[in-house]
Amino acid sequence: MGPAAGDPGLYEVIHRRRDVRAEFNGGPVDPAVLTRLLDAAHSAPSVGLSQPWDFVLVTDDDTRRRFWEHVQGERAVFADALKGEAAERFAGIKIDGILEASLSLVVTYDPGRGAPNVLGRHAIADAGLYSVCLAIENLWLACTAEGWGMGWVSFYREEFLRALVGVPESLRPVAWLCLGPVDALQETPDLERHGWRRRTPLAGALHLDRWERAGAEVEAVLAAPAPFGGAVAPAAAP
Amino acid sequence: MGPAAGDPGLYEVIHRRRDVRAEFNGGPVDPAVLTRLLDAAHSAPSVGLSQPWDFVLVTDDDTRRRFWEHVQGERAVFADALKGEAAERFAGIKIDGILEASLSLVVTYDPGRGAPNVLGRHAIADAGLYSVCLAIENLWLACTAEGWGMGWVSFYREEFLRALVGVPESLRPVAWLCLGPVDALQETPDLERHGWRRRTPLAGALHLDRWERAGAEVEAVLAAPAPFGGAVAPAAAP
Repeated sequence: MGPAAGDPGLYEVIHRRRDVRAEFNGGPVDPAVLTRLLDAAHSAPSVGLSQPWDFVLVTDDDTRRRFWEHVQGERAVFADALKGEAAERFAGIKIDGILEASLSLVVTYDPGRGAPNVLGRHAIADAGLYSVCLAIENLWLACTAEGWGMGWVSFYREEFLRALVGVPESLRPVAWLCLGPVDALQETPDLERHGWRRRTPLAGALHLDRWERAGAEVEAVLAAPAPFGGAVAPAAAP
Repeated sequence: MGPAAGDPGLYEVIHRRRDVRAEFNGGPVDPAVLTRLLDAAHSAPSVGLSQPWDFVLVTDDDTRRRFWEHVQGERAVFADALKGEAAERFAGIKIDGILEASLSLVVTYDPGRGAPNVLGRHAIADAGLYSVCLAIENLWLACTAEGWGMGWVSFYREEFLRALVGVPESLRPVAWLCLGPVDALQETPDLERHGWRRRTPLAGALHLDRWERAGAEVEAVLAAPAPFGGAVAPAAAP
């Protein structure tokens, strides 16, 4: 399958990507574009090459309406926990584009794929769940590259979603994603525009060799022109 | 910070990316490249804009050697569970490039970032953990775009890793990643080349509206030239 015309640059796409709620135009979707997106997701890395994801394309209006109603209930649950200024800010924030997006996708995790001996999962049980998220990020970036938007809706209970689309008990629903063509993407994330939370500088998330070595010490290494690191030297003879 | 020269296309990078073990050349790394990679990770989507990830750059030889020894022990644990042909195949598979890679990164999840009211996490406790994985995939793709490789090592116990780099009790270690320049990437995933497991066709992971509607029915929709989907129609008046 051929790439999208132009195949925009990775970094450009990473920085243009947004979590979309209000910008879907709701137009019909080209099956060839959707196939490229799903293929990008399916090409993600996975623990033990287990590819433990499934994708349920949700186009049925009644299913999407019922999910939207459930999400409004969970919105109210969250709103009840907020006070004062936070409550006021949240009131102005749109949390989903379920009704406006051209389609939705339910993404699931199947722990049985490649089991029992999934290479790389015996010590980290969640490694399979992590793989599903890597596929979701591929999908998100591919949407952005195609002039589509994507929004991850997480105001729902897993058991409701499981029943809604019939996910078997042995699997876990991981995400409800809204996607489809958009007229444009916002330059600033919605939550920042609405004063909910601001993005933080990268430097605050960096550490060097030990957790407690953070801040200026790491920044100095990254700001210096000198190359550093390299393969581990052989241990000295005893 | 400027993009990499050329900024290779998203789809090209997605399909070229590999989980690297043997191809690291171990050369010193350019701090400007590493900064672009970390910035790409830090630009990932996150639940409630919480950006709940931290990155510990591990360059210390002794730390990397100790982690490598721990991983060899976990390799033996996994090997003990295998029988016959699987055991033979696993014996030939390299599971990490810890000693050969130019550096390693420990990625952690901080549930306290933006707490207590993380927008979008009250019903799905793992949503923050999912965000960390989205950042890891951005990093993986950026490595690929820069001519670096990345390998996710998951043969370890979280408590060992926590102690090794001093991750506080309130956070969770999510990944040990090996990264650095490579001479080339394999065309075929290691596990497929070694006969451990083959990639499966996308069609087997697709469903339409309900889990039980799978296979030919979904393939027909995606193979047809006709556009489909669209915004949800307003509910009919009662």
